[in-house]
Amino acid sequence: MQDAGVYLFSHSPIHQSGIFVCMSGNTDKHIMRRALKLALKGRGHVSPNPRVGAVITAPDGTIIGEGCHTHFGGLHAEAAALKACDGKDTRGATIYVNLEPCCFQGKTPPCTTAIIKSGIRRVVAAVPDPDPRVNGRGFAALREAGVRVEVGVLADEARHLNRGYFSARERGRAWCAVKVALSLDGKMAALDGESKWITGPEARKLTHALRADHDAVMVGAGTVRHDNPQLTVRSVRGPSPARIILAPHFGIPPGCKLAESAAQIRTILVTTETADPPGADDKTIELLRMKENKFGMIDPEELLSRLVDFGIQSLLIEGGSRVLSSFMQADLIDEISVGYAPSVIGQGISPFEDFNPVSWSGRPRFRIARIKHYGEDVVITYNRVT
Amino acid sequence: MQDAGVYLFSHSPIHQSGIFVCMSGNTDKHIMRRALKLALKGRGHVSPNPRVGAVITAPDGTIIGEGCHTHFGGLHAEAAALKACDGKDTRGATIYVNLEPCCFQGKTPPCTTAIIKSGIRRVVAAVPDPDPRVNGRGFAALREAGVRVEVGVLADEARHLNRGYFSARERGRAWCAVKVALSLDGKMAALDGESKWITGPEARKLTHALRADHDAVMVGAGTVRHDNPQLTVRSVRGPSPARIILAPHFGIPPGCKLAESAAQIRTILVTTETADPPGADDKTIELLRMKENKFGMIDPEELLSRLVDFGIQSLLIEGGSRVLSSFMQADLIDEISVGYAPSVIGQGISPFEDFNPVSWSGRPRFRIARIKHYGEDVVITYNRVT
Repeated sequence: MQDAGVYLFSHSPIHQSGIFVCMSGNTDKHIMRRALKLALKGRGHVSPNPRVGAVITAPDGTIIGEGCHTHFGGLHAEAAALKACDGKDTRGATIYVNLEPCCFQGKTPPCTTAIIKSGIRRVVAAVPDPDPRVNGRGFAALREAGVRVEVGVLADEARHLNRGYFSARERGRAWCAVKVALSLDGKMAALDGESKWITGPEARKLTHALRADHDAVMVGAGTVRHDNPQLTVRSVRGPSPARIILAPHFGIPPGCKLAESAAQIRTILVTTETADPPGADDKTIELLRMKENKFGMIDPEELLSRLVDFGIQSLLIEGGSRVLSSFMQADLIDEISVGYAPSVIGQGISPFEDFNPVSWSGRPRFRIARIKHYGEDVVITYNRVT
Repeated sequence: MQDAGVYLFSHSPIHQSGIFVCMSGNTDKHIMRRALKLALKGRGHVSPNPRVGAVITAPDGTIIGEGCHTHFGGLHAEAAALKACDGKDTRGATIYVNLEPCCFQGKTPPCTTAIIKSGIRRVVAAVPDPDPRVNGRGFAALREAGVRVEVGVLADEARHLNRGYFSARERGRAWCAVKVALSLDGKMAALDGESKWITGPEARKLTHALRADHDAVMVGAGTVRHDNPQLTVRSVRGPSPARIILAPHFGIPPGCKLAESAAQIRTILVTTETADPPGADDKTIELLRMKENKFGMIDPEELLSRLVDFGIQSLLIEGGSRVLSSFMQADLIDEISVGYAPSVIGQGISPFEDFNPVSWSGRPRFRIARIKHYGEDVVITYNRVT
């Protein structure tokens, strides 16, 4: 089985060895990459906390301890790394961490205090923590105690690693990614709805890796009725995310796979304040009741905000065209992963069938973040240009 | 200016130096690459003859002569390479050539005779010549004279280099390529027809390189009316191909750029046997009159056959959707170059809007031949799987 994490950093090589020695000016980046990789271990277990990894090096550059935040409520990465030093002398050491160390008493004591007490003399951090209880105060506390602080190493990668965490705090809504498989001419299904399978098994593995990397995966009622998906993580290692069904009126067909597995895997039905759709009485299914707008629709932006209250900071939408179009129309899509298959569908259904940009020059622009071959297909990941 | 030829072999590095020394088992491939590159020089000038390059090496591997077929009726590549040896001893030499040497008296004497007379003891060829006057007879004549013959080095590249020549002889029709610029969601234009520009300037440069690499470029009447294109080669080096307008009923709008430049660049209007569309009386425009089928349409397969009689062995179709769809419906498209731009159009026009495959499993399959970044866009070239 492929590790789902391989996807996320496929564009930046990660050292596999446990021991690093200072050899060049790139060392800070190399060790930060290791911290990012450690942070990924928390995926699916720490949310809504951020994914954090930490590496401690002795003055000669040797790694003497490393750790990560492994589960919600567990040790913070910095504390785990200090613990892993296991009696080794941490005086004069450097700690690498992908997020600003916390400076408040939460479920665990402040990491800044532990770092200062340990005699660590340098903190290399990727990004500040947007949590209002930290947000620069952690760095300030360290500097006041005479610790050297450097911020910004692999900042982009670190923000992307915790994109849900940042989105929730900075924009008050979940990060919104889209995954879609298209023929080379941009169709996701034939006119009669036929769509299995457009891309090959390797590209479908990526879908599972993407699911494992988000807090929740969402489809519309039509996709549940038509494809009866499980939306679980199967062909890669990693936890299954929550499943969300956007079905304000139609609900969940009785006996569908999502309903059958709802006792094991968190399943949320998004409906209106008054509707009583099929599945709403299923005690294993959570209900997210929302106001409907004047067209009887759920507002996508409000949904992304409400999901934060449900502990869901990053969402992967898998379709269909109506759901995708409504999120595109509201300009809420942060990232699109398109698997292009080398076949032609011709007449068929486009992913943003109902989306109508206000003008030609106003059409949404993205930038290519990654291009990767998967078997006979190619997957291009686009990020919204903001 | 970028050389249009860079595109064709972007996937296989070509040595730039004039001198090669035998150093490894790959040498045959390396020198054949040089022959292929020399052959490309004939692009736009030798058709309907094939593009041929030849390199002669002394027994120690040093290149002592090279040449190519530069223009229709000119010296064959083998004769040009022998001439370039310029008094050097060719006994015991090897000649690399991308196509079987000819063995008949045409506009020039048979190359096999010249090779045998020169004392060359080894011929390395990429592919047999499908011309019925050659087709293995060239190799046989060489072998009978005691020359060692090896066939098959870089055969795929050599077939692709002369894809029009092979298509005309093996299938009796022109090779058919398609070039289209799409948004990431597969739309070539908005519903109101707006389409300028989907991809950026770098990807548009590729369009010009593609034009320079085909005998003709074709659009439908709608594209002429809507976009008023020139269809010339501008932003790369290379000759402009013939321009074909598929407009059996609508003809050419008076004063369009194609009509204005028809005296300088070969321009062909495809019409029916009886129609008298606008532009048909323009003496600078060639008419290709064809039978119309019961729907009043031109048969795409018959058109590709007729083009061979017009000396056009490779065709690049640039749109629009109706023309593209009719050629896809007839399953005549050999290669598709799609430039995907990182923007979303949503509601809009798909490239194969009217194409309807007979079944889901019967949808046309291609394979990815090349993926290349061009500025902010990516261009994927797909070849038909036969």
